[in-house]
Amino acid sequence: MPAPLILHGYFRSGTTYRVRLALNHKGVAYETRPVNLVEGAQRSADYLARNPQGLVPALETPGGVLTQSPAILEWIEETWPEPALLPAHPVRRARVRAFAAAIGCDIHPIQNLRVLKKVSGELGQGQEGAQDWARHWIATGFEALEKLAAAADGQGGFIFGDAPTMAEIYLVPQMFNARRFGVDLDAFPRLVAADAAARAIPELAAAAPENQPDAA
Amino acid sequence: MPAPLILHGYFRSGTTYRVRLALNHKGVAYETRPVNLVEGAQRSADYLARNPQGLVPALETPGGVLTQSPAILEWIEETWPEPALLPAHPVRRARVRAFAAAIGCDIHPIQNLRVLKKVSGELGQGQEGAQDWARHWIATGFEALEKLAAAADGQGGFIFGDAPTMAEIYLVPQMFNARRFGVDLDAFPRLVAADAAARAIPELAAAAPENQPDAA
Repeated sequence: MPAPLILHGYFRSGTTYRVRLALNHKGVAYETRPVNLVEGAQRSADYLARNPQGLVPALETPGGVLTQSPAILEWIEETWPEPALLPAHPVRRARVRAFAAAIGCDIHPIQNLRVLKKVSGELGQGQEGAQDWARHWIATGFEALEKLAAAADGQGGFIFGDAPTMAEIYLVPQMFNARRFGVDLDAFPRLVAADAAARAIPELAAAAPENQPDAA
Repeated sequence: MPAPLILHGYFRSGTTYRVRLALNHKGVAYETRPVNLVEGAQRSADYLARNPQGLVPALETPGGVLTQSPAILEWIEETWPEPALLPAHPVRRARVRAFAAAIGCDIHPIQNLRVLKKVSGELGQGQEGAQDWARHWIATGFEALEKLAAAADGQGGFIFGDAPTMAEIYLVPQMFNARRFGVDLDAFPRLVAADAAARAIPELAAAAPENQPDAA
């Protein structure tokens, strides 16, 4: 048996949450090593040696340290293909990946901690201005995602097919963030349903921020 | 022969540029349909019917319209595996994808047109403030990428191996943006070398913004 995986991350980090969801979904064991983003632990020499970008998550694997959640998630899918998080058909894979990227590229990075700090501080918008900024980009992105979800063929609440895919792996942490920032979710019933369907699965529920050892 | 691909995009859009680079690298023919982002063509009813997110690019394929450049690029790689843009070994694939995601998630989305408009307008930073914002996120990201590139095993200027990979497909458009915003590139010799090595390939040079029919 290979050395266990070690996931360096933060309980409330959406990108770390994605990796926990994928590993739990596939039943892959891993240890958790908290990196306290609020205290700046991601800029410690120890952490930067693992990930020079100074961002979480980083996943220690027998083949080396992997960074960037989109790359880690594809590696997990390639290493443990079942249960699959991407469909088999190329065009369907592209649709699931597009839904994921609409969150991973067009929502999450614009409302993550380092950007909010810049908006509230240097740009002089304060705490409330930063929250408005976050709500704006989340709601704008969700409007498009709701349309994509309505056009998809999901069943049982899921966006694509009848089980979680990469769509839910990205969506669930983004919904957590949306609630934290007070985004009004009434306009997004398909997203709310998919989030609930995924979190009803015990293995995925176990990945929630409040269930992590470093939860504050 | 299948219907030709139709790429809806904008000559100066970094995400459209990525798709042109990948298609050209693999020798895949496609038609170009300009979507003028400055005039707001991405919000026309005609375009929104293709891509409800109202972003470029969108790629019309025989199987339907694909959106989100990370998803489109993986579809291109799966559909035309050679010449490969991802290595065969899973950990090496993860490293190339991590480099790509460090651009696709952590730099590009924070300095794209819609975010800059918000920073210059609503946040009251003006044109010069928006440029400072863009330079900050590009330079911060490039510092990490330069370290990743220095630690990688590229030859002939390339980041990984001796030919372009997804790393260059994401890097070349980001370098174009960096120059446009006046980022000082002296601190990033490996990135400059990889960009030059990729653009020395005639097929990739043909994908440059200035060589597109809608170049202003």
